[in-house]
Order: sequence, then C-alpha cells, then structure tokens
Amino acid sequence: MREFQLIDRLAARLAARRADTQLTIGDDAAVVAPAPGQVLAITTDTLISGRHFPDDTPAFDIGWKAIAVNLSDLAAMGAAPAWLTVALSTPVLDGPWCDDFVDGALAAIGDAAVDIVGGDTTRGPLSITVTAIGMLPAGAALTRAGAVPGDVVAVTGTLGDAAKGLGLWPARADTGGDPDTAFLLRRLARPQWRNGAAVRALAHAGIDVSDGFGADLGHVLAASGVGARIELAALPASEALRRRAATDEERRDLQWRGGDDYELCLTLPAASVDAARARLDCGLTVVGVIESEPGLRVVDAHGRRCPPFESDAAGWDHFGGRGAV
Amino acid sequence: MREFQLIDRLAARLAARRADTQLTIGDDAAVVAPAPGQVLAITTDTLISGRHFPDDTPAFDIGWKAIAVNLSDLAAMGAAPAWLTVALSTPVLDGPWCDDFVDGALAAIGDAAVDIVGGDTTRGPLSITVTAIGMLPAGAALTRAGAVPGDVVAVTGTLGDAAKGLGLWPARADTGGDPDTAFLLRRLARPQWRNGAAVRALAHAGIDVSDGFGADLGHVLAASGVGARIELAALPASEALRRRAATDEERRDLQWRGGDDYELCLTLPAASVDAARARLDCGLTVVGVIESEPGLRVVDAHGRRCPPFESDAAGWDHFGGRGAV
Repeated sequence: MREFQLIDRLAARLAARRADTQLTIGDDAAVVAPAPGQVLAITTDTLISGRHFPDDTPAFDIGWKAIAVNLSDLAAMGAAPAWLTVALSTPVLDGPWCDDFVDGALAAIGDAAVDIVGGDTTRGPLSITVTAIGMLPAGAALTRAGAVPGDVVAVTGTLGDAAKGLGLWPARADTGGDPDTAFLLRRLARPQWRNGAAVRALAHAGIDVSDGFGADLGHVLAASGVGARIELAALPASEALRRRAATDEERRDLQWRGGDDYELCLTLPAASVDAARARLDCGLTVVGVIESEPGLRVVDAHGRRCPPFESDAAGWDHFGGRGAV
Repeated sequence: MREFQLIDRLAARLAARRADTQLTIGDDAAVVAPAPGQVLAITTDTLISGRHFPDDTPAFDIGWKAIAVNLSDLAAMGAAPAWLTVALSTPVLDGPWCDDFVDGALAAIGDAAVDIVGGDTTRGPLSITVTAIGMLPAGAALTRAGAVPGDVVAVTGTLGDAAKGLGLWPARADTGGDPDTAFLLRRLARPQWRNGAAVRALAHAGIDVSDGFGADLGHVLAASGVGARIELAALPASEALRRRAATDEERRDLQWRGGDDYELCLTLPAASVDAARARLDCGLTVVGVIESEPGLRVVDAHGRRCPPFESDAAGWDHFGGRGAV
C-alpha cells in the first residue's frame, strides 16, 4: 500500500462529525471555525513503541491510547475536545493494522463530537504524535495554578491500576482468564479520558494523573504556591488492584507512584464535590486538602506522617527514570 | 539532563510574543484566543531522521526545517501562522543540541508573530512532529480545489534546488567552498516558507511544492477538476542550479520531480500576477495556464509535448518511493 492510498483509506473513515469542521483531511491544512467567545486549549503528546506502550501492543490499543492521553490533557484544562491531528510513523504500511489503529482511535473518541482533521503517515520507527484542540469559555481554563487553601483534593476513578497492569503484561498469556488481570491490563491499554469540561466550573485547579499521583499533585502545588495534606488510605483503589496487589504496601506504592492512569486530580470547594461527582460517571474521591503551608504532607490511616511518599513526588522522567529533578 | 529540566530550559526561551496566547508551555495544555471572525487552519508534519533529512544534519537545520515545512502548509492555505506545538523524540537529551534545535526553530519563525505553545520531549529515535495553527478570515481559505480554467499557474522562488542539494550532500565536505553548492545545500536544509497569507485574496488555489512540482500541481488539478498546460522552460531555476546541473535534462528533471522546495504553486487570474508578485519577496513566475480539459499537458520551448513529464505526476511516496499510485 502506498502513502496516498493509506491517506485515502483513512480519510474515508474519518468523515467530519462537527458542523464547525469546514475542511478536513485532504488539503494542505484543515479549516475549522471555533465558536465565538470560546478560547482554545492545545496539547500534544507522543507515544513511542517500547517506551509508552509495550512493543507487542495491539494496534487497536495503540490507537486508543494515543487519542485518550491527549483528550485527558484537554480534560485537565476543562476543555471540550473538538479537533485532533494524528501523525503516525510506522515501519511498514499494513492495511489491517491501520484499520485496527483507526478503530481504536475512534473507540477512544467514542460518541464525543471530535474530528480527526489532519495527519501524517511516514515510514519510521513506530510512534504516534497526536495534537488535540478543545474549546472552553474565555477565562475559564482549569489550570494547575488555581488551587487555594481550603480546597479539597479529589481524584476520579481509581489509581494504580495501569501500573499494576504493566507489571502483569509479560505474563498476561498465563493469566488471561483472570478477570482482575484483564481489568488491570485494560486500564493500561485503554485509559478512559474523563469529562473534565463537565466539572470545569466547579473546580479551581486540575491536572491529569499521567506521571503518578504524587508527582502530578506536586505540579499543582508548585504552580499554585500552596501545600497539601493527603490521606494515603483515602486514595481510591479498584477491587481488582486490591485483590492482585501482593501487599498493601505494593498497592499504596502503585497508587501513589504509578503513572498512566489518566484520572483527573482536581481541587475544589468541599461543597462542590457532590455536584462534581454527579456530573462524572467514574466516581470522585476526596483524598486530602489544600493548605497554605507549602509542601506535601502524607498521612496514613492513623494520622502518622509517611515521609517516603512525601519525598518522592517527582514521578516519571522519560529520560532519567524516576527520581527527584 | 532530565525531561523536566529540558522543558524548563525550552520554555524559558519560548516566551509568548502574541497577546492572544493566554497560556503557553507549562500546563496540561496551552490556551489561545483566536480573533473573532477568523477560522483556523491546522496542519501537522513529521520529519524523521534519515528519511526527511540526512542523519548528520545539524540540529539548527532540523529545528528550522521542522518548523518551515509546517508553516509552508499554512501558507498554502493562505493562513497567517499563529501557534505551533513541537514534539521532539531524541535518543539522548543533550543541552547544546537542544539549544541549537531551538535556535533553528526560532530562526525559521523569524519575525513572524508565531508562538510555540506546546511540546513533548520523549526518548526515542530522532524525529520531530510539528502541528501548526494559523488564522484566516472565514470563507477565505486557499484550497487545492479553487483552480478555474483561464487561471495562470504561478510558482514562487525557484524549483529543484533542494533536490540538487540532496544529491550534493554526501560530498559537501569537498565542495563546501563553492557558493553554488552552499546555496543549494542551504535550500535543502533551510527551506524558506512563503507569505501565503499576503496573496490569499488574489489567488484561487494554492499548494506548497513538497513532493515535486508535477505531483503537487497534479493534486490541484484533481481537486479542482481541471487540467493544465505547463511550459517546462518557464519553470524558475536558480543560477546555482543552472550552473551545477550537469545537463539541461537533469535540471528540468529536478525542477519537475524534485521535492522539498516548499515554494508555493498558485493559480490566479493573469491580471493579479503583478500584484501578487509585489506582495512577495521571492519572485512569482508564470509557468502555465489552467484549462477545462482534464490532464496535464507539458510542452517544451518549441511547443512540443513532453510525455515523460506528463505521466509522472505522482511525486514522492514516503513508503513506496516514486511512482504512480
């Protein structure tokens, strides 16, 4: 298959859904018309085979994840996703592989009003760079800098599943029949982006949990110039993780340091939590409180400080591995 | 150097120039505010080491080219560039290399009001994916589909230089002192994006010459449902190419089939050519005319048809090499 044929094949599957997409794939650039009064959120993320997903990940899951991690970044800003570009580098052009990739990308979009309006296919090592553009009202962006003392810290869904899934990946053939394993592997392979736009008006600050909860919360605290007290035992865990983690210590470590969950960490007034939870379909768990004193105070169920969790909030560094920077 | 440090280092050099860039690098997404009444052009292009530039290309030139090829796509739509994201995958993080890369990227932007508002750095094989977003008035996009019979076909700058430069690349150490070689190599390494926005209102259709003039003109003809008659001898050639091409045949072949020139091919009324040329700083040469009869008719200086040029208008296919698709 030639590049032009691939582009035609993809373009035929990617007809625009949005009325404000005026020109989609096929010209030098797409043309879109943002709504009056709206500003745009723009983000880009690259996934590289062997680094951001195992080399033997199915094409469907690669397509899913490339889209989901970018829509998660928009969600963390409170933006409603609208347009995507997808740049795919792949060693060989393979029609069925590309179809599966597009299936996964479209499945990650789901029924959201999001158009893939541009792309590029090149021969090279397998990697995908997606750029996502979303809309939100002017002045309403949910940044990392908006946390104020008194806010509660809340997180969607559950934490640590993807990191446990990564640990289970090499032995997945032997554990494929176990529903907990299947759940955890799926959390790794097909992260679900959350509806950040729905809770934008209720929250003060937001970030998505991609590097690890502790690290990502650290970014919010630094940007906002505040501190936080977090109850380790309050971090939400799936039943599957509770059952499959060898020890409570392993589970807590995965919840705190594991990346790739793509849940939202929000800070918001305690009085807004129930309303925010009602606008989401994934749960919203209060795990702590923002304090004026800088720094991160992590306490166990007995109120005792847990220094190892406080000192390791730097998360994942794609070049240097984990550790303080 | 760690990823976070690199991001800090880059962010410090990429302060926003535009008043409508409300939030730049450092959060989950950038926030920008398009002007009322404007629509956005969005494009993305990936450059892969060894495929889109020689492996031993200096970092400055890689940064330049990654930006320029995307701004060229916006120019072909008649859009004024505004915002960029840059996703860099590199085997090792090297501060001086990254500084040179950013120097090149900023040099390609020049004094245009363009902000790099987002990016991603990952460890992997050297490749760069840039997404470019530009603005233009609603309904004014210069597409490939707007060519009408009677338009002239015009091209900016000169053609074939980059392809000749690529041929000279391996022996560049031996010919570095030759100004023609230096010119041709520079045309390859640092393509100059043209000011498409300045001529948008004068032209009917546009495309940038990245795959080869014949191939790219073919895209315009197909999208517009028209044909064209092109005078081969009218294609603009630099003095350097005239001197360095071994034969007239080689020169014409490079002009017709060589890619990577990133000149604009426009169709416009003959009466608008002088005005369009005056708005550009790179020349604008009429090379033919749009005709209602589909197909491409290429004639030499004596009016004789040149079938080899007519049948090979498919240009460069990144997977399959040159040839019809």
